[in-house]
Amino acid sequence: MESSPPSLSILSGRANRDPDPALGAPYFPSTMKLSSFFEEDRLMVDAALDRLLPAESAQPSSVHTAMRYSVFAGGKRMRPILCLESARIFTADVTPALHSACAIEFIHTYSLIHDDLPALDNDDLRRGKPTCHKKFGEAIAILAGDGLLTLAFETIGAAPVPPERRVAMLSEIASAAGTVNGMVGGQVADIEAERKPVDAKTLEYIHRSKTAALIRASVTAGALCAGAPPDDVARLRRFGETIGWAFQVTDDILDVEESSAALGKTAGKDLAQQKATYPAMYGLERSHEIARELATKAISELSPYAERAARLREIAEYLVLRRT
Amino acid sequence: MESSPPSLSILSGRANRDPDPALGAPYFPSTMKLSSFFEEDRLMVDAALDRLLPAESAQPSSVHTAMRYSVFAGGKRMRPILCLESARIFTADVTPALHSACAIEFIHTYSLIHDDLPALDNDDLRRGKPTCHKKFGEAIAILAGDGLLTLAFETIGAAPVPPERRVAMLSEIASAAGTVNGMVGGQVADIEAERKPVDAKTLEYIHRSKTAALIRASVTAGALCAGAPPDDVARLRRFGETIGWAFQVTDDILDVEESSAALGKTAGKDLAQQKATYPAMYGLERSHEIARELATKAISELSPYAERAARLREIAEYLVLRRT
Repeated sequence: MESSPPSLSILSGRANRDPDPALGAPYFPSTMKLSSFFEEDRLMVDAALDRLLPAESAQPSSVHTAMRYSVFAGGKRMRPILCLESARIFTADVTPALHSACAIEFIHTYSLIHDDLPALDNDDLRRGKPTCHKKFGEAIAILAGDGLLTLAFETIGAAPVPPERRVAMLSEIASAAGTVNGMVGGQVADIEAERKPVDAKTLEYIHRSKTAALIRASVTAGALCAGAPPDDVARLRRFGETIGWAFQVTDDILDVEESSAALGKTAGKDLAQQKATYPAMYGLERSHEIARELATKAISELSPYAERAARLREIAEYLVLRRT
Repeated sequence: MESSPPSLSILSGRANRDPDPALGAPYFPSTMKLSSFFEEDRLMVDAALDRLLPAESAQPSSVHTAMRYSVFAGGKRMRPILCLESARIFTADVTPALHSACAIEFIHTYSLIHDDLPALDNDDLRRGKPTCHKKFGEAIAILAGDGLLTLAFETIGAAPVPPERRVAMLSEIASAAGTVNGMVGGQVADIEAERKPVDAKTLEYIHRSKTAALIRASVTAGALCAGAPPDDVARLRRFGETIGWAFQVTDDILDVEESSAALGKTAGKDLAQQKATYPAMYGLERSHEIARELATKAISELSPYAERAARLREIAEYLVLRRT
């Protein structure tokens, strides 16, 4: 087992959890107060999700009821908010980015539904509520997941932007959700890694594929949707990849440090399932450092945008300082 | 229970299984010999599927091995062949349609993997081989299905045709695969209809959504990919919808009439599971008539294309006269 991931060696050696004042980012204590734009974006996203999802009454209603149950089970909408705030760097009107934002939330939700199934993580609780299969049965949960994944791509196809932008978002998002360095691949690798020792390279692969890829796609899709030039798209892709990685390291930490009640899901599961995690490989203190280093690296990508990226910078800070 | 589906009342009253010579379509006895273009198309599709699927060695290899196992488990490739031959009405070079053809085969394969799961149809045998979850376990089967569905949309995004055609194919295919009048919706309605009486309207909804929608999308995507004018796209959509419906009625009939060995899957399952089927509602003889009437109606849509649609006509005949 290596003592530190090689790819982090280029990062600064800062070892505490205090934010760097030089970054100009606000400091959030554990009871952090979120800026109002979080809530504004979240309300805009929730309204769009409601518009884009079939009504519960649409036949066959059981699957639509299950899809809505899981989408509206209390998610923080971090991925859609990242998409909108990435678009905002390049445009004042971010409403055209709501389609890709919601598409990514549909993909995120389907992945949670399928991950929770008895054959996978076998979880009964998600965001403090019964998981989809506990509420609706396994068959409907599998099909609700399939339906959300399909709806995600239908939604991208209907985005109110030129076809070439829709195709660019499609490729970006599908690749990030897929089996080669994407979300499904990361989930498979995560299952394969249970109950056996993994090396640092495998742990990094799992985190980057399972979580960082879709967060990267959220940020990138926002830029693509707003017609950002290729260099900016590439820069935001790097930001998204790195902050997504930090996000998953933080998730690992919270699974150890926080209670089930705070998380709304079963805490300590990673250890019980002998999952490959950063705290298990590096210890808690070093894991905090790694998350902080990754966030610093991600935020440094935003420097050309100055104040235009203030919100994205604030979200990045939140993602590693959150307690749930 | 009604004696005939109302929507068929406009069809001719032909009540035997002999094809109408006036249609100019070839007659296939039960040991029918397929035209060589079927095999040529199939080989072209198989080569493209092989190119578009990640290698078994690509990490994580378990999911890619499972995806390839199910895609190459011996399917007839009817949907991709329909896509290619629909494109051929409008273009001599159908190779650009291989992306959408393969995307639809990926979607079809994912639907079989998920349908076979213990929580759904709980089938051990598919095309004469162990089903994906019997071979690789439930977790990998669920994720292999998710991976194939995602790869399907990634493949459409990479089709070598202008972006507006890719977006049109995306919308067509995603809608046909989805929960509202699409494949997942039909599968849900099929599950809901088990072990309880269904009316003719529900039976029609199930067949049209579960099977006809994706076959319709196969034909329509071929026309869209080749840049067919809107009127032709609409005409081929009607052809695809109707022949897809006939295909599922024929599937119901074969489940009653043929052995498990011939079908390569468990015969008689519909009856055992008390599924909603045409033979159960209308009897075998009337079901044969319905399939024939639908095929005749479908083929009539092709009349403007004369010889250019000869192959599509031949496939339509095959789909209702096949014995496996």
